[in-house]
Amino acid sequence: MLEAATAEFGEHGYEAASVRAIARRAGVDPALVHHYFEGKSALVAEVVEVPLRPDRLVRDALDGPVDELGARLVRAVLSAWDSAGVRPAAVAALRSAIGQGPVARMLREFLRREIMHRIASRLGDDDRADAELRAELAASQIVGVIMVRYVLAFEPAASVSIDELVARVGPAVQWHLTGRPPGT
Amino acid sequence: MLEAATAEFGEHGYEAASVRAIARRAGVDPALVHHYFEGKSALVAEVVEVPLRPDRLVRDALDGPVDELGARLVRAVLSAWDSAGVRPAAVAALRSAIGQGPVARMLREFLRREIMHRIASRLGDDDRADAELRAELAASQIVGVIMVRYVLAFEPAASVSIDELVARVGPAVQWHLTGRPPGT
Repeated sequence: MLEAATAEFGEHGYEAASVRAIARRAGVDPALVHHYFEGKSALVAEVVEVPLRPDRLVRDALDGPVDELGARLVRAVLSAWDSAGVRPAAVAALRSAIGQGPVARMLREFLRREIMHRIASRLGDDDRADAELRAELAASQIVGVIMVRYVLAFEPAASVSIDELVARVGPAVQWHLTGRPPGT
Repeated sequence: MLEAATAEFGEHGYEAASVRAIARRAGVDPALVHHYFEGKSALVAEVVEVPLRPDRLVRDALDGPVDELGARLVRAVLSAWDSAGVRPAAVAALRSAIGQGPVARMLREFLRREIMHRIASRLGDDDRADAELRAELAASQIVGVIMVRYVLAFEPAASVSIDELVARVGPAVQWHLTGRPPGT
């Protein structure tokens, strides 16, 4: 099934691939795919062998008041990346997303659909295009911290505590999410 | 000379490599290296064949009042990356910096020394360690926008104007630089 998923995502991308087509390719019933995997996003996590599920992290962080969402997102993402068992595979997945070719395209669609769209929806704005942009800018701040802390490993950013980063980066993320400085 | 520079940076990294050692390796006089290249940072730009000079961009942006530094940095970096002649090579250089091996190590040291340190120094703080962290967080926001706009190419972030991004991202960068919300 994983081979079939890899091939299907590679040919059609994340959005157009379907569990049904993956099952057909693997010669199994779609119900069997659903029995083993929760859905398309779970298949992506298996295909790229990443031990964290960014969509699940974000879904959990979205649960709670919007005016603390920035801090929750920063804490959830950094707590996951800080785990020694997760980091090498997470860095590898990030490198894949940045690369060229079908895996990169699949990962980008996955991130856009399962993360950006979900955050934008949670903002509950009338101006959906603006909410999408704000979600992307919030994500840009979080991706940037991941780059500086875990990939480029600049000091002191690589060594300060998560609490410190939540206190410093959370407000910037929050500003992007709501479009105004926190507390105003 | 470029071959010698590549080998020297690869073996010793950016900080420890010297123009003198590169000249020795190339079998030329150090004055000749200086005649063709302005210094180590110019050699890096040649070695990775990147048509923009991030150190020069940042040096220019540092020139001016600190309370508008965030906006100037965002505008300078995005204006450079927006140029069609620059982007493919810049994306390639970013991929190299994220990768593994000696080129990645050299690029990271280069970024840290020629960009982070310069920004931190410009902040003119007594608390130098904190200024370094703030410079890195400011850089994280800018790197994140580069990732979302040029590498992951998420829409609408990939298509909005530079003015729009300066208005939205500049304040977040400024907040990191000074450690307090802009205008306070």
